[in-house]
Amino acid sequence: MGSTERIRNVAQRVAKWHGAGHQVIVVPSAMSGETNRLLGLAKEISSQPSPRELDMLASTGEQVSVALLAMALQALGKDAVSYAGWQVPVLTDSSHTKARIRSIESSRVQRDLDAGKIVIITGFQGIDEHGNITTLGRGGSDTSAVAVAAAMKAQECLIYTDVDGVYTTDPRVVPEARRLNTVTFEEMLEMASLGSKVLQIRSVEFAGNYRMPTRVLSSLTDPLIPLEEEARSGTLISFEEDTKMEQATITGIAFSRDEAKITVMGVPDRPGIAYQILGPVALANIEVDMIIQNQSVEGRTDFTFTVPRGDYARALETLDSSVKAHIGAANIIGDTKVSKVSVVGVGMRSHVGIASQMFRTLSEEGINIQMISTSEIKISVLIDEKYMELAVRALHKAFGLETA
Amino acid sequence: MGSTERIRNVAQRVAKWHGAGHQVIVVPSAMSGETNRLLGLAKEISSQPSPRELDMLASTGEQVSVALLAMALQALGKDAVSYAGWQVPVLTDSSHTKARIRSIESSRVQRDLDAGKIVIITGFQGIDEHGNITTLGRGGSDTSAVAVAAAMKAQECLIYTDVDGVYTTDPRVVPEARRLNTVTFEEMLEMASLGSKVLQIRSVEFAGNYRMPTRVLSSLTDPLIPLEEEARSGTLISFEEDTKMEQATITGIAFSRDEAKITVMGVPDRPGIAYQILGPVALANIEVDMIIQNQSVEGRTDFTFTVPRGDYARALETLDSSVKAHIGAANIIGDTKVSKVSVVGVGMRSHVGIASQMFRTLSEEGINIQMISTSEIKISVLIDEKYMELAVRALHKAFGLETA
Repeated sequence: MGSTERIRNVAQRVAKWHGAGHQVIVVPSAMSGETNRLLGLAKEISSQPSPRELDMLASTGEQVSVALLAMALQALGKDAVSYAGWQVPVLTDSSHTKARIRSIESSRVQRDLDAGKIVIITGFQGIDEHGNITTLGRGGSDTSAVAVAAAMKAQECLIYTDVDGVYTTDPRVVPEARRLNTVTFEEMLEMASLGSKVLQIRSVEFAGNYRMPTRVLSSLTDPLIPLEEEARSGTLISFEEDTKMEQATITGIAFSRDEAKITVMGVPDRPGIAYQILGPVALANIEVDMIIQNQSVEGRTDFTFTVPRGDYARALETLDSSVKAHIGAANIIGDTKVSKVSVVGVGMRSHVGIASQMFRTLSEEGINIQMISTSEIKISVLIDEKYMELAVRALHKAFGLETA
Repeated sequence: MGSTERIRNVAQRVAKWHGAGHQVIVVPSAMSGETNRLLGLAKEISSQPSPRELDMLASTGEQVSVALLAMALQALGKDAVSYAGWQVPVLTDSSHTKARIRSIESSRVQRDLDAGKIVIITGFQGIDEHGNITTLGRGGSDTSAVAVAAAMKAQECLIYTDVDGVYTTDPRVVPEARRLNTVTFEEMLEMASLGSKVLQIRSVEFAGNYRMPTRVLSSLTDPLIPLEEEARSGTLISFEEDTKMEQATITGIAFSRDEAKITVMGVPDRPGIAYQILGPVALANIEVDMIIQNQSVEGRTDFTFTVPRGDYARALETLDSSVKAHIGAANIIGDTKVSKVSVVGVGMRSHVGIASQMFRTLSEEGINIQMISTSEIKISVLIDEKYMELAVRALHKAFGLETA
């Protein structure tokens, strides 16, 4: 949410849904810039603020939003009540600054809904079993919204963002990118995890786990456009493959610029070695994405994996301190100038030749492929970051996505 | 607390006390300007924001402070943990924006203290029995501090403010005003309730109820001045009258500019009438201060009382809507241009003639007295607000306070 003007807009939109007879729960994010302002204060105080206190600090941003939105709705004559995560409560684990939701208690909220109230719940935050405030990390408000929708058995979860839906790829990279009316949950999961910034990956996981139909739509439209029109706008993440209107082979091109690659060289080729390398990395709360282990030569092999670029230094440190000597690796090298590009689509399942078309397209552009990883509905390649935009544009065109 | 620079200063001061072997609990206020900023946002949204949502909003200011102070202490190598009021919990009644503390649970905090931690608790706020966030109203952080000190059976409660102690009167009105080394609890209560802005009245009440020695001292001194010096600075509110060093008859001159006077005219002179008038006013949560009922003439009398000027309009409205017709009053008139001036001192008990000296002084300055009220240790008069400064200066001089 932006300024108070923006909050009033949100209130009008919410009041419109409520006025049409819907029970409505709203999970607003912090006001624009507020979370950064708070984290900036922390930075002024300490170079390494404690995660618990960061959560205590950052969670206030959403609390301000819910209170103001409740006031704005009340000013429109609506009965509205706001809750912080701990008041619902939204129970999470204790991983401060990146907590995971465990459960959401629905009774208090349901009572309010049944009494005709609009309920407003802070996104991004919860409470752990020891009564500490936790936050879900950046983008956590989306996750909260989907989790609340699931807990309350909502009909649909509407995520209002600054984009008007999910596109075949990022329109800033490919101007011809096209908005999708629907994507399947699996496609959305791949798109989100591969760097489409529309929705946070965990919110998509929640939507999937609870089969919660979730619509991504624009918060920038006139809040008073007809409800029917708004209800059909954006992109619906659906759970019925056969209702999918667009049967293109490939749904979209996802990418993630900020990747880093780490290779542990000269690793003894014996059972358990992958776990010995990645176990400590996982323990350090670093997400590992692509993993490759080459064919061994003379009992030794190279083990390569990617991590988010922001975690690169920490991952290297972890390996140096607790892995390298232990497993007898020869050397550890890395590269932070790599990006990932993926083609995604459920249609891929029934079509051969997607991979070869992808590789041919990249080859024609002179782009070298450093790593490859595949799933049932996506193929990802790691390439030099300076070719990323070129690769995305070429693939978007090669798979005919601008006209599908 | 002001900027993050200020927070670091506070941390240094706290670390100094902790380093000297004290168990320390800190109750910081919001950062300077933050509460006003938040209430300003509310005002942009709604002209009559709901008190519950105001509390939800305003309470975030102190939560930001405690988190930042904890980080600042950690950066100094101290083990520190912050709690919001609801986490302690600080239980209050449900009077949003002006709640009263009912009890404070000490076990969690004590456990942390015993483990060597510095505990930081949000001032100004608590939680009611329904799990709603409440706030204590402006200045509530002082009250929280004293209440926490009492609940934790602290040795002394130190209130750091932007003044360096309690003065014989406001130095901005009388430059010759003198800082007091000690005041008795009763004097402080009168000084606070009569408008000396040093401490909020409720914090003094708490100090009194729990006989908690409370020291008012400056937050603007160098945080690294020797502990012994700091421990003797400011003004101690004491509970031992005979330890009082200064045995002046009068301790100080208090005043309150923002008073308003309401007269209900032509009230039938019968039992229960005062309650019928003031009951609804109290129910509207308006504090009534001075009360006068004149001798009745022909079975009718005039009933006059004062309220804080900010509550004047609401008090009049309450009387018009639910009192006037009911009791058959002839008319209701009011005056918002009145102020209260009081002389305060425990020495007054054993000295006659204080009242006459006060009245003579005012008379010599040509100041008309509109109402008089007295207690064992104070005499208050209501006068035209334009004479307030003159009255305070004249009385300060007449009672020899600049040299006592």
